Amino acid sequence: MPCLFCSIIAGDIPCYKIYEDEHVFAFLDIGPVSEGHTLVIPKTHAENLQAGSAFDAERLLSAVHQIAPAIMQAVGADGYNLGMNHGECAGQDVMHTHFHIMPRKKDAPRVFTKTHPSKEELVATAEKIREIIQ
Amino acid sequence: MPCLFCSIIAGDIPCYKIYEDEHVFAFLDIGPVSEGHTLVIPKTHAENLQAGSAFDAERLLSAVHQIAPAIMQAVGADGYNLGMNHGECAGQDVMHTHFHIMPRKKDAPRVFTKTHPSKEELVATAEKIREIIQ
Repeated sequence: MPCLFCSIIAGDIPCYKIYEDEHVFAFLDIGPVSEGHTLVIPKTHAENLQAGSAFDAERLLSAVHQIAPAIMQAVGADGYNLGMNHGECAGQDVMHTHFHIMPRKKDAPRVFTKTHPSKEELVATAEKIREIIQ
Repeated sequence: MPCLFCSIIAGDIPCYKIYEDEHVFAFLDIGPVSEGHTLVIPKTHAENLQAGSAFDAERLLSAVHQIAPAIMQAVGADGYNLGMNHGECAGQDVMHTHFHIMPRKKDAPRVFTKTHPSKEELVATAEKIREIIQ
């Protein structure tokens, strides 16, 4: 079976894209723990950070550095949690390196819970973020 | 009051150092959630990732890419969680950018709990990691 994230990058599976450059691709998590929850992935397939190159690691955090402020601004967040799970024992669910950017608001509950926004809500959030990035 | 992590980098406050290069410094968390729990920080002070440069962001994940395998090998971990908290609302406790590398073992409990190893145990863990990195 082809890699889910490689299929998303190739456009074979639709996504709520918010950013793309030569090396990195970013899109909304469809089961977000907060509005604007984004996945940031390298375009070159690697099962995890260690299986990929140092160059791809650098590009990945450079992209997070670039897009996180736009995500925060778009959803009115005051901060974010950045997370990556390496290996099944660490909770990695898709075997293609990915960072989670999870926006935080000051008055939000401390513990994250998965939410189920509608397609229209995800489209609207992605558009708000893309407008700021562009 | 001087920044705690800047004081650690300067050597004014002792730490269990495991790695240092021109731009990045890494040392053991003294309240680890698992053996080998490491903090990776930029040497140039910045309150958080966004306040620092893209260059420092790149160097930071490049260092994680380099040292995480040594940490896993030293403590016999099967994976790790990588995390960064941006802002007080996201749980950031020290206002100097830092990644947490938290090693995971297959048979360990899913939920992390802070532990309190002795000074001798921390010294031994740091030595094991440094020996592999060198």
